[in-house]
Amino acid sequence: MKARVHISLKNGVLDPQGKAISNSLHGLGFESVLDVRQGKTIELDLTDMSKETAETEIDKMCQQLLANTVIENYSIELID
Amino acid sequence: MKARVHISLKNGVLDPQGKAISNSLHGLGFESVLDVRQGKTIELDLTDMSKETAETEIDKMCQQLLANTVIENYSIELID
Repeated sequence: MKARVHISLKNGVLDPQGKAISNSLHGLGFESVLDVRQGKTIELDLTDMSKETAETEIDKMCQQLLANTVIENYSIELID
Repeated sequence: MKARVHISLKNGVLDPQGKAISNSLHGLGFESVLDVRQGKTIELDLTDMSKETAETEIDKMCQQLLANTVIENYSIELID
């Protein structure tokens, strides 16, 4: 079972990495850039299980480790 | 115009961050985890332009800054 977790900063949370990327892009002449936000994608390769079990298991992983739920949102995408 | 760039390590490239996450998940009792790979998602907010122009512009951004094309793959997703 493969799954992907998308983790992004909540709206309103300052994103220094995104800001740094935005400044660098402007420095390279990309004036069309208005804003940049950086997030994480975590690809999980798990033993076979039902989709429901996988969803529950991965949610626990996010709550306990993968995401900082104070400042981050996460979404779970089951691949196969 | 909003777009998202998905950046992931090429197959075969060692992923120490993924390995660390995998070990931590095992430490928390998540035995179902076989492998973990971590990637980046960069959300871009750009001035209005055609999809073709955006695709070309973002590809240049990836080549010049956003992705290390020696060890990383990237894909561009235009949102609206």
